[in-house]
Amino acid sequence: MKSLKVSVVGSGNVATHLSKALLNAGHTIVEIAGRSPLNSAALAKQVNANVCNTVKELSTNSDLYLIAVKDDEIFRVAESIQVNGIVVHTSGTTAVDVLSKSSKKSGVFYPLQSFHKDQSMDISAVPFLIEGNTPEVEGKLIELAEQLSNHVSRATSANRKKVHIAAVFANNFTNHMMRIAAELMEKEGLEFNLILPLIQETLDKVKIHHPKDAQTGPAKRNDEKVIQEHLSMLEPYPDYQHLYALLTKSIQKGN
Amino acid sequence: MKSLKVSVVGSGNVATHLSKALLNAGHTIVEIAGRSPLNSAALAKQVNANVCNTVKELSTNSDLYLIAVKDDEIFRVAESIQVNGIVVHTSGTTAVDVLSKSSKKSGVFYPLQSFHKDQSMDISAVPFLIEGNTPEVEGKLIELAEQLSNHVSRATSANRKKVHIAAVFANNFTNHMMRIAAELMEKEGLEFNLILPLIQETLDKVKIHHPKDAQTGPAKRNDEKVIQEHLSMLEPYPDYQHLYALLTKSIQKGN
Repeated sequence: MKSLKVSVVGSGNVATHLSKALLNAGHTIVEIAGRSPLNSAALAKQVNANVCNTVKELSTNSDLYLIAVKDDEIFRVAESIQVNGIVVHTSGTTAVDVLSKSSKKSGVFYPLQSFHKDQSMDISAVPFLIEGNTPEVEGKLIELAEQLSNHVSRATSANRKKVHIAAVFANNFTNHMMRIAAELMEKEGLEFNLILPLIQETLDKVKIHHPKDAQTGPAKRNDEKVIQEHLSMLEPYPDYQHLYALLTKSIQKGN
Repeated sequence: MKSLKVSVVGSGNVATHLSKALLNAGHTIVEIAGRSPLNSAALAKQVNANVCNTVKELSTNSDLYLIAVKDDEIFRVAESIQVNGIVVHTSGTTAVDVLSKSSKKSGVFYPLQSFHKDQSMDISAVPFLIEGNTPEVEGKLIELAEQLSNHVSRATSANRKKVHIAAVFANNFTNHMMRIAAELMEKEGLEFNLILPLIQETLDKVKIHHPKDAQTGPAKRNDEKVIQEHLSMLEPYPDYQHLYALLTKSIQKGN
């Protein structure tokens, strides 16, 4: 694949990691257009790019336009540009056709990972879900993604959305479970850190066994005595009590 | 601490790991009494111990009796033995006083970890929550636990139970979230493995930030458009839809 000229819209976590990865793969980051002039300038400096104050100022002859902004802004950006290059967004939720007015060639370049600007990340391990509005565009985007990552898959807008829901369960909701655990521990004067080895073990297990087979605990064992005791002990936390009951039933149902 | 003579009741995951750890720390495992003769014999061989067919056959002059059996069997075992040594169980849920008839010296030796017999485990990283029925017993049990682990805390029966509930959230319920994620991915023909880097990232984050501060996603961002779309896409899975709604509310409430 020849070296591409890339214009980037956005200067947040995803824009930062993908711009750097594309630069490392031998492409040129022509320009950065972000909402925050400070962030745009900071990212532009890191990837030897120019700064645009608005998307209207973007070059019209880039090969790739990477829109890495929040879901509700993708539509606005797409309305504001009209180019010949491939236009992609990086969202798990937004359908590809929102980009149809911006270019004849559009697609989705979705990294299934939670990025943090200041934390380095091995991009080769990040799964990418790719979609193109034509087989030709899709082929090019897959080729590009494979320069960055060893885990590239095709995904339609419909199945990418389902994967995004799965990601909410696997990431946001697991984090919330840990938050509840932390709160319950801390109320007893015990540090949340005490529970980290247990969480690491849970993760190590699902690397080897399907989580369906890795389940342990009172719900899985149908240990009604312990379950009832836990529920009554959770009375001071009615929300957590409700969640405990529902999650227990859900585990039992899936046994 | 002098070398202790230890009798072990149970031959499962916890009995196996603790017996080996106590042997490694210089103590003598006198005997194993388990429900399964095969498992008892296998464990006894590994720790140079005798096998007892029932708890009635246990020696009466051991220094420590370690009861590592399911919660509803602890009571039965406790009813069957009467000794002078310290009697402990290893449960997160059962109160210490269930052991009061077995010995004047009783306690709890609770490892906050999910063990698997055939998987090695760095016991020094496992947090132990210790309780004794007298300050003297508690002191001895803490000294013993500190020979095995670098993370030993005191915990009353009441706060140990709360920690056990926290462990259910942090382990069983996080695992269930991953199971739901796996199911949603697999229905779309995508492998669960694709989501493992995201889960690893979630865990890496809580090693550095409190999970309250590490939360991301549509609930945290109050992104109602995405939330409503996810809920409507989950209609074929009413249980997961209900969980999604409840967990989203719970995250929003705690923001």
